[in-house]
Amino acid sequence: MQSKSVGIVGASGYSGELLVRLLSRHQGVESLVVASRSHAGKRLSEVLPSIGPSRFDESCFIESDPSALAASDTEVFFLALPHGVASEFALPLVKAGKTVIDLSADFRLFSAEVYREYYGEAHPAAEWLKKVPYLLPEWSGREALGASLIACPGCYPTSILLPLLPLIKGGLVDAGQVVINAVSGVSGAGKKASEFYSFCERTQSVLAYGLAKHRHLGEIEEQLTEAAGEPVVLQFTPHLVPMDRGIASTVVAPLKADLDAVYAAWNAQYGQCPFVRILAPGKAANTRNVVGSNCIEFSATADPRTGRVILTSVIDNLMKGASGQALQIFNLKFGFEETEGLL
Amino acid sequence: MQSKSVGIVGASGYSGELLVRLLSRHQGVESLVVASRSHAGKRLSEVLPSIGPSRFDESCFIESDPSALAASDTEVFFLALPHGVASEFALPLVKAGKTVIDLSADFRLFSAEVYREYYGEAHPAAEWLKKVPYLLPEWSGREALGASLIACPGCYPTSILLPLLPLIKGGLVDAGQVVINAVSGVSGAGKKASEFYSFCERTQSVLAYGLAKHRHLGEIEEQLTEAAGEPVVLQFTPHLVPMDRGIASTVVAPLKADLDAVYAAWNAQYGQCPFVRILAPGKAANTRNVVGSNCIEFSATADPRTGRVILTSVIDNLMKGASGQALQIFNLKFGFEETEGLL
Amino acid sequence: MQSKSVGIVGASGYSGELLVRLLSRHQGVESLVVASRSHAGKRLSEVLPSIGPSRFDESCFIESDPSALAASDTEVFFLALPHGVASEFALPLVKAGKTVIDLSADFRLFSAEVYREYYGEAHPAAEWLKKVPYLLPEWSGREALGASLIACPGCYPTSILLPLLPLIKGGLVDAGQVVINAVSGVSGAGKKASEFYSFCERTQSVLAYGLAKHRHLGEIEEQLTEAAGEPVVLQFTPHLVPMDRGIASTVVAPLKADLDAVYAAWNAQYGQCPFVRILAPGKAANTRNVVGSNCIEFSATADPRTGRVILTSVIDNLMKGASGQALQIFNLKFGFEETEGLL
Amino acid sequence: MQSKSVGIVGASGYSGELLVRLLSRHQGVESLVVASRSHAGKRLSEVLPSIGPSRFDESCFIESDPSALAASDTEVFFLALPHGVASEFALPLVKAGKTVIDLSADFRLFSAEVYREYYGEAHPAAEWLKKVPYLLPEWSGREALGASLIACPGCYPTSILLPLLPLIKGGLVDAGQVVINAVSGVSGAGKKASEFYSFCERTQSVLAYGLAKHRHLGEIEEQLTEAAGEPVVLQFTPHLVPMDRGIASTVVAPLKADLDAVYAAWNAQYGQCPFVRILAPGKAANTRNVVGSNCIEFSATADPRTGRVILTSVIDNLMKGASGQALQIFNLKFGFEETEGLL
Repeated sequence: MQSKSVGIVGASGYSGELLVRLLSRHQGVESLVVASRSHAGKRLSEVLPSIGPSRFDESCFIESDPSALAASDTEVFFLALPHGVASEFALPLVKAGKTVIDLSADFRLFSAEVYREYYGEAHPAAEWLKKVPYLLPEWSGREALGASLIACPGCYPTSILLPLLPLIKGGLVDAGQVVINAVSGVSGAGKKASEFYSFCERTQSVLAYGLAKHRHLGEIEEQLTEAAGEPVVLQFTPHLVPMDRGIASTVVAPLKADLDAVYAAWNAQYGQCPFVRILAPGKAANTRNVVGSNCIEFSATADPRTGRVILTSVIDNLMKGASGQALQIFNLKFGFEETEGLL
Repeated sequence: MQSKSVGIVGASGYSGELLVRLLSRHQGVESLVVASRSHAGKRLSEVLPSIGPSRFDESCFIESDPSALAASDTEVFFLALPHGVASEFALPLVKAGKTVIDLSADFRLFSAEVYREYYGEAHPAAEWLKKVPYLLPEWSGREALGASLIACPGCYPTSILLPLLPLIKGGLVDAGQVVINAVSGVSGAGKKASEFYSFCERTQSVLAYGLAKHRHLGEIEEQLTEAAGEPVVLQFTPHLVPMDRGIASTVVAPLKADLDAVYAAWNAQYGQCPFVRILAPGKAANTRNVVGSNCIEFSATADPRTGRVILTSVIDNLMKGASGQALQIFNLKFGFEETEGLL
Repeated sequence: MQSKSVGIVGASGYSGELLVRLLSRHQGVESLVVASRSHAGKRLSEVLPSIGPSRFDESCFIESDPSALAASDTEVFFLALPHGVASEFALPLVKAGKTVIDLSADFRLFSAEVYREYYGEAHPAAEWLKKVPYLLPEWSGREALGASLIACPGCYPTSILLPLLPLIKGGLVDAGQVVINAVSGVSGAGKKASEFYSFCERTQSVLAYGLAKHRHLGEIEEQLTEAAGEPVVLQFTPHLVPMDRGIASTVVAPLKADLDAVYAAWNAQYGQCPFVRILAPGKAANTRNVVGSNCIEFSATADPRTGRVILTSVIDNLMKGASGQALQIFNLKFGFEETEGLL
Repeated sequence: MQSKSVGIVGASGYSGELLVRLLSRHQGVESLVVASRSHAGKRLSEVLPSIGPSRFDESCFIESDPSALAASDTEVFFLALPHGVASEFALPLVKAGKTVIDLSADFRLFSAEVYREYYGEAHPAAEWLKKVPYLLPEWSGREALGASLIACPGCYPTSILLPLLPLIKGGLVDAGQVVINAVSGVSGAGKKASEFYSFCERTQSVLAYGLAKHRHLGEIEEQLTEAAGEPVVLQFTPHLVPMDRGIASTVVAPLKADLDAVYAAWNAQYGQCPFVRILAPGKAANTRNVVGSNCIEFSATADPRTGRVILTSVIDNLMKGASGQALQIFNLKFGFEETEGLL
């Protein structure tokens, strides 16, 4: 494997900051440029002190101009940008021959109609939607790694899809009766100046949000529909909890097989995956075990009273739900050890 | 209304401590004795500094001996004791002519078999189970107030039953397909010396527990079964979140009527209830709005994609879920203003 | 004591919200108007759901226009406004014969120069500074209650002055060598849309601020100087900690007497004060014991190695540090029980 | 540099767990054994799920028997044990030719009398105290690295000594008038089953502890005394705050030079140190910037009003205050890159 020159666009948010830290440790990153509208000219260590000592400490943020970045000799770009903005960078960069790993929601959906339904406007480059793979490393086929523009899954979807996809695909649960509740730490909302996200408002607060149609729903349903071979419609209710990082998803669905079949499907799919930790029935996944790591932890418990299976699944929303997974994709695409920079 | 002489048994836990504070403010409490095995002889203000200035500051804890308490001239007792222990006090006190408001789980169930199923042993006084009313103030008939031993509902059940009971009774939702997820602050586990409940273990942690059969399930199902007129079996998954006080329950069920009927049923039942706050569809109940108060806040949102209704409901587990509700029952039973001591 | 008609100006912040809740419980408040620029016309219960059931639930916010309020028949106003804004209301209201209890910093200082030094501009009504009493209920003389405009002490100053004033006045410590460190919960900064005060930025963060000259310093020094009879210059370093409410101040100073003299001075001054809890030497004051109450808790410990005394002192910044103390002043001024509405 | 075979004794606490995680990433660790009384026989990944994917996942805990460990072929041991227990392992291991890096307090003091004063009993191997170096990597001379038993500094001392030592040694501050306040996250107390350390007791709580003579005081004074060349007596008050990890220390002392001299002394001593981040005057060190990293961040601000300098200093108590610093010592001793495993 050859070392790469890497860029990050949008590094002043939480996932961008974490990417800088992870890439600083990575043996296969020979250079790093970081582009940011608000911080151009400042040193990385000044804006992001928590990245600690880093070989890129003295680097300065550069202007986040798509044409200039496209003309540069950086080979691979991570986009840690808000949805809608990412596509303004992704397309020029890909056209200039760069590899782009997009952490935003811009290319996660296949359907332009679904995009319009969830994001309230036409997709700016709808013709790309069907071409860009949605790459969930432990699930997606290896051919997706060949693409030069890759969409990273969202945080809620990652926590839900990994345990659920094999069960839907294998017909082990009733895909028509899936009910999902999930909770997220506050960093999921990004770095924001907002009364709602202030410490005092959030510290004693749990509440549902996105009732009844959170944006991640479209993404989850598309993936499950593909796995099921027929339309899947979900009940999905996310909640905010007073925690910095972490997502815990609880999925219930009628079980059409026995629990052994669930575990067999999981072991077949994930037995060799370094970041998947499968817990015994009756044990609940715990965000504390994954905060700061790129792991997903999940379990299945049968409820004989209701005939349903209960899946509990946790990730760190900024790691496996964003920056860690993006780096995992980078590793797989360029032939590095899957865990490089992620231990 | 005549002032009452009041006792608390078991005041060193969180709900007992809160009861002391609430009763200190209450205009109809003329005297207070507090019994505790571990603190007998100590002054209240020494053991419970957070009760603040109180007319009972200088009182001392007395021994928690059932016979001595039964022989005393205290008229009304609140039991803030672990399940299994409460019945050792409740029966001698009631037989001695006292009124007993029991915050424990000992008399919440009607069925001795269900008790054995959930608590793993025979009920010590099974013949009382059918006699002791389960008193949810906004729902239960006024005749229950006549009993001299009253069971206070649990915290999860209160948050779930108040919004759900009218819908089940009215046939507005499919009682056979109800899925409930709930999260609780850590105080729900009581005051404990335990590594699991330590600050560092809980502060970054969300996890499900009681998979798949939490003890409160029996209590919730019994009440819903009575309202439905036929057996109701639920999916109920509670979770622990890094928060001191508060419960948020999210209930989904197939909607058999329109949302107006849901709100009409709620308004009919709860329109005059001071502690019930009904939110508009699409607004999510927020624990922050109820922490420190005896209110329950809930809402209903229809999901036309799935045909289900989503109920969000929040309470303070120590107030409406325990001590506040116990005091509300006291007020109703003895003719005080329902909100006395609870504003 | 006669019931009063009461107004609050600026009730959308944390101290205003708490005042509404406290006044709703108060037996001597016959009516309440609440003025707010941003919420005029909305119902209280809509903007401030956490006030719980209240007799003023259905009241609406009115416009916060000084002239209109001055012309109204409301007798007493609490000002829960930012510094600089409060004086725009205080003077017209006082001139119209109202009583004004000001929670802001506008009239806390005696000296116009000190005001300019700490607030960076001339005081808008400097001639009032010497006339308005700074009223610390447990310390100030009763004649201050006669004023129609009263300045409530700030949160840090309250936690520091109550334990320290008797020692300075009695010459028990060396006033020239006092070093104070204090930490505050985040609500001390008010309700704000700010990245710095967001949950994720604060939840793992402790840091000093206001280096080396926090605004409350002028206020503390003025009071101590008056007690000492000579200029007192302090070292004061406040810090922010990841907590909602609460202030903990730690004061060290060379001890010029023995510890018994410290406790004797405290007992003489505070023996009859319902909100003062004096702890034994070696016990540390704990914010948990005062959050939600109007109490201050403090202790003194001698360090024979250094010859200093260590004072630890805690309050709830929104209660004894703001709204609770303002209500205590109201009670004392109008002859209500000192603890009315504050238990 | 040659790879090392490494052992950890006592890996079930927070610092042991973190050591496992850090060593798993380290390029110079060829094998790892982990000894624990309570977990012998269990797999690492089962007991410590949060270590994530690790090359040592499948290793099992072994018995923590000093003789067996001494007889093994492991070359280097980290002791993450309570004080008093560490010496039972340290001496047999060193005598058997092993290198021992001790995270406990057992060998931090030079004086057996000071040990007895702070720990209440005679030191079990007092003759070793003067022989074992106290190794603060950025301060201690390189000859200390030659020792086969090395004492790692405590968490509070690390945060205080690094900024303060050069100033004391250079005579830039008055060593006789130093006042230190510090706050620590709860993990500093270790993993414990205790009501006091439970989530609900700590989440709204700040309080001082160890009044007036915390155990770390002896260690800090010994080091400062050595630097000053005369006895230094400190005022040191630690506090507990509702945070998982992090220490913030605030030191004030009369400044005998100007602030430039302070920064010059720091730059001379720490200019090449990868884990030291020196902030400009007026900027306060923030625990958020160091949590999860091995950095220390500090600043100095002059207060012309009092003639004192205010130092603010922060570390992650489990990293630079324990496991990270231990690994840094390992790196320096065996010739690895100082930051290996610590980025």
